Amino acid sequence: MKAEIVAIGTEILLGEIVDTNSAWIARQLPELGIDLNHTSVVGDNLGRVTETLARARERSDLTITTGGLGPTEDDLTREAICALLGETPHVDAELERLLRGFFARRGIAMPEANVKQAWLIPAARALDNPRGTAPGWWTERDGRIIVSMPGVPAEMERMWRREVAPALEGRSGAVLVTRTIKTAGVGEGTVDELAKPLFATPGVGFGTYARADGVHLRLGAKAATREEARQRLEPVERELDAIFGDAVWGRDGDTLEGVVVAALRARGQTAAALEWASGGLLAGTLADAPDAGEAFAGGLLASTAAQLAEAAAIDAHGAVSAAAAEAMARAARARFGADWGVALTGAPDDEPRGDEPPGTMYGAVARPDGGALSLRTQMSQGRAATRRRAVTTTLMLLHRAIREEE
Amino acid sequence: MKAEIVAIGTEILLGEIVDTNSAWIARQLPELGIDLNHTSVVGDNLGRVTETLARARERSDLTITTGGLGPTEDDLTREAICALLGETPHVDAELERLLRGFFARRGIAMPEANVKQAWLIPAARALDNPRGTAPGWWTERDGRIIVSMPGVPAEMERMWRREVAPALEGRSGAVLVTRTIKTAGVGEGTVDELAKPLFATPGVGFGTYARADGVHLRLGAKAATREEARQRLEPVERELDAIFGDAVWGRDGDTLEGVVVAALRARGQTAAALEWASGGLLAGTLADAPDAGEAFAGGLLASTAAQLAEAAAIDAHGAVSAAAAEAMARAARARFGADWGVALTGAPDDEPRGDEPPGTMYGAVARPDGGALSLRTQMSQGRAATRRRAVTTTLMLLHRAIREEE
Repeated sequence: MKAEIVAIGTEILLGEIVDTNSAWIARQLPELGIDLNHTSVVGDNLGRVTETLARARERSDLTITTGGLGPTEDDLTREAICALLGETPHVDAELERLLRGFFARRGIAMPEANVKQAWLIPAARALDNPRGTAPGWWTERDGRIIVSMPGVPAEMERMWRREVAPALEGRSGAVLVTRTIKTAGVGEGTVDELAKPLFATPGVGFGTYARADGVHLRLGAKAATREEARQRLEPVERELDAIFGDAVWGRDGDTLEGVVVAALRARGQTAAALEWASGGLLAGTLADAPDAGEAFAGGLLASTAAQLAEAAAIDAHGAVSAAAAEAMARAARARFGADWGVALTGAPDDEPRGDEPPGTMYGAVARPDGGALSLRTQMSQGRAATRRRAVTTTLMLLHRAIREEE
Repeated sequence: MKAEIVAIGTEILLGEIVDTNSAWIARQLPELGIDLNHTSVVGDNLGRVTETLARARERSDLTITTGGLGPTEDDLTREAICALLGETPHVDAELERLLRGFFARRGIAMPEANVKQAWLIPAARALDNPRGTAPGWWTERDGRIIVSMPGVPAEMERMWRREVAPALEGRSGAVLVTRTIKTAGVGEGTVDELAKPLFATPGVGFGTYARADGVHLRLGAKAATREEARQRLEPVERELDAIFGDAVWGRDGDTLEGVVVAALRARGQTAAALEWASGGLLAGTLADAPDAGEAFAGGLLASTAAQLAEAAAIDAHGAVSAAAAEAMARAARARFGADWGVALTGAPDDEPRGDEPPGTMYGAVARPDGGALSLRTQMSQGRAATRRRAVTTTLMLLHRAIREEE
């Protein structure tokens, strides 16, 4: 089954809103066994939307649209589908009742323009949207499907999970189940080399990916049922766990901050952060991990060298250094009474600071025994990427130190 | 001049990377007087890239591509352009010299695969990329332009600003100059009503936009030269300033955190933050404002109710309340010795906390005279959006309080 995504809306086309829906939907398709070949964005123009849908329907079995289901004159997705299929819309009595109920519950009179949100055509059935006023459309004719969902991500994601994915499951005749094994401290070439003996496993595909948080090894099995695919993957997974041992830090949806917090909680320990020039991203990342709660003892963000010197007794001239980062990590432990301290300092911007090239940051970890470790990162891809990289490597250092403590 | 953007890369198509480049480029086009009709994403497949470029070149004067300029076999943008135009690439001696220099400076041997990054064809000239190894291509034939830039945002943005935008300027025969006036505390309807007498100004277009940081009024003038367009806007801008007075907090690229920091610096004052359940976003936003430096006195992020109680002497049971937020703002002032304190607390997740519905947050500001103000926000669009809204409204409260202090 070949699919194509069309995001509809002038605000998306002009970049006033960044389209995150298409990427989200794209990530859901592989497990349904559906191949994606194209995504595109088109503005609120009836001719261009109709033409884009016509081309999509010509070359793809399944066209997925987001946006253009609102009540205004600019919302033209329904009109374009009607034009494409040559069908005439009618107001569906049941949809109209639901729509008027939505407004009544909020004590608002329904603007008459909204009535088009109760439209249906013979080829379409409605997709429920309890989070908003716009139901989706599942349109099917001549073996071609068009699925139309709202552009608001929270509404779209719910509709996909509850209505669209279950209806698509099985339609493609295959499902793909994937597992991702996340490693640290091993190069992409080594991961490839070590896993190679398993590459010949029938019905299982492999891929290695160098990511910010280490090398990911992804395996996938396509089968008629989810259960069958899982059974094919299981023995391979077990062998890989035996091969990689401690280099594996997580799998599938695991995040580094999530496994760090889980490791801290399992030991009844806490960590605290002290930062400079990082926008507070290290503390924010730790505090946002699932169930961070007690495991995160607090974060302090300093802005000037003087504040930093006061917090960690550091000479302002050497604030961008391994020694400063280690002193900060120790100060974080002491200040918050935590078992572990983490710190981030540096010059993430595009200008050099002191002797260091631009984009240099130092991360450090202070251990419960008072010892400290640090590392240096250097990137020239802009402030946000530099900080993310530094946070990731600092969390990797913390995770390794927690494991090694035993 | 009609333009079209094509993002090239399987990782983007499959949603493993969210394409932010297309939106960024889309936002740059209006001021060059260029209309954008389509954007699309295509995977690393020579046939599909060539076919997508062919269609783009058919219907658009200018095609802008990002991605696919790396050294690997999956990087196929150059190959697709060669196939499309029927031209044969050669290795350009000067480009090869630059490329080898890039590797030599890093003390790495250049992999031979990289030599294709020194390719040119008769219709193409190279676009300089000092941030990476992949030069861009400006391809022009039969009055149609294809601009190819790398997919790494920092490399692409620099190339656009230094090489592409200057070359496009004037090619479209028109420029659009826009001004955005950012207001606070006035509804969209009122902004529209107050500005209406100016809507008839010849050659000037108006639009109002409700944004997270207030209502924006955008005016634009299209003319043959930038100077001419500016002259048309200037008297209108002056009149709008007179009409809206203090409701205007900024214009164009101004951010709320930027104007807050500027206001603090102008007064020689400082602000500090104390947060709970916000991921440190309030402190991070303030610390990241241009020239924040001394104006931001520091931020403290607490994770548990006990930490919060210790930091601000708050009863843990009432941590999601206006009183708690105000106590926290006062504690932030005291702890960091700052003139102003700001605080954020709440339950940004999808579960209710205490008596409050999910997505409730309280922001507060403590004044130099010891008084405090607070506000409540409630949203159900997920944690990230809820926090951003709460940070924005708290910064608006701080900005108004700083202005009113005089």
